Amino acid sequence: MDKIPTSTLKRLPQYIEVLKRLKKAGLHEVSATKISVFSNIHHTLVRKDISFTKVAATKTGYKVIPLQKAIEELLDWVDISSCLLVGVGHLGSALLGYQEFSQRGLSIVAAFDNDPQKIDTKVHGVSVYSALDITALALQEKIRIGIITVPPESAQLIADIMVHSGIKAIWNFTPHKIIVPPDIIVEYVDMFASLAVLSRRLAEQHHIK
Amino acid sequence: MDKIPTSTLKRLPQYIEVLKRLKKAGLHEVSATKISVFSNIHHTLVRKDISFTKVAATKTGYKVIPLQKAIEELLDWVDISSCLLVGVGHLGSALLGYQEFSQRGLSIVAAFDNDPQKIDTKVHGVSVYSALDITALALQEKIRIGIITVPPESAQLIADIMVHSGIKAIWNFTPHKIIVPPDIIVEYVDMFASLAVLSRRLAEQHHIK
Repeated sequence: MDKIPTSTLKRLPQYIEVLKRLKKAGLHEVSATKISVFSNIHHTLVRKDISFTKVAATKTGYKVIPLQKAIEELLDWVDISSCLLVGVGHLGSALLGYQEFSQRGLSIVAAFDNDPQKIDTKVHGVSVYSALDITALALQEKIRIGIITVPPESAQLIADIMVHSGIKAIWNFTPHKIIVPPDIIVEYVDMFASLAVLSRRLAEQHHIK
Repeated sequence: MDKIPTSTLKRLPQYIEVLKRLKKAGLHEVSATKISVFSNIHHTLVRKDISFTKVAATKTGYKVIPLQKAIEELLDWVDISSCLLVGVGHLGSALLGYQEFSQRGLSIVAAFDNDPQKIDTKVHGVSVYSALDITALALQEKIRIGIITVPPESAQLIADIMVHSGIKAIWNFTPHKIIVPPDIIVEYVDMFASLAVLSRRLAEQHHIK
């Protein structure tokens, strides 16, 4: 399996958005230039990224449906299947109800919390279990992906439990950097990193004027 | 005002997390090496990042409280104040209830939606108004930051309205790339980009074995 650069992987979902919109608008073919305009990504990058799919362009461009399918396969989104989520606070609850996830093939099959008021309830249709049951359930269901939405100070503990429970990929929504064995894949959705850039740039701009 | 590299800005919030934990643990001073261990960031980078604060280390390290304060000032987090949010779905509601934001100085003062069932209600204490009232309220309250949590296909429309309403910085939580005038600051929290990397790396690893 080819190793695809991270920068390409991060742009691929945007092409899927564009292709979906073009499909809705009734288009069957699209050029790299048009994808470039709609995604606001330079056309040389678009061509490079699409080359990983091995889908070839005809004179009039790429066929929309096969290209979307090829990108989804490249992202393995048809295959992601089940994951678990630990931390059913505001953010965790929101993720449980986030329909876009299931549209991308990510299905959260179980949620965990240590609040007795939340345990044995359902949030957006997903059962909430005691955090003590993570290992038993993960091993039994052979779950490979874990989402962390606990407070930052508990992130490492939950990561340790996940690794111990056979989880191979961790999606960390806390700003806390977790330490895991090298074969475990970790991705961060760090909102505060993003907020830091936003607020500083705004301050810089304000001081220039 | 110095222009700080984006990579540094994205790491600074992690140092704040570390400093907070050390403060809780009763420490008054900390070395760059210790910050490096706790944040999992190389110590040369830690030193470079901290140099932007102009806080000098003594023989025993940096003083924890002044360093945290200096980083927060660098991020202008003491100053961010009010912003508005458009799109009170699962994700938008979660952000309205996310206490970490107010701890960082970001206060969401108004939310907007086009669902009549949501308009004139309160979500986590924040009033929800009709999306038609964005401009009036933004101009009146002189709001400079806008958060977009609508479905991707509406992101551009909302961005246009925000720009028209005097918003200077947009925090876009949809995967849709928005097109705005060059003086408007845009930051993305693109969960799907992150999910794309995670699932592909997991697939690659699975195929190696």
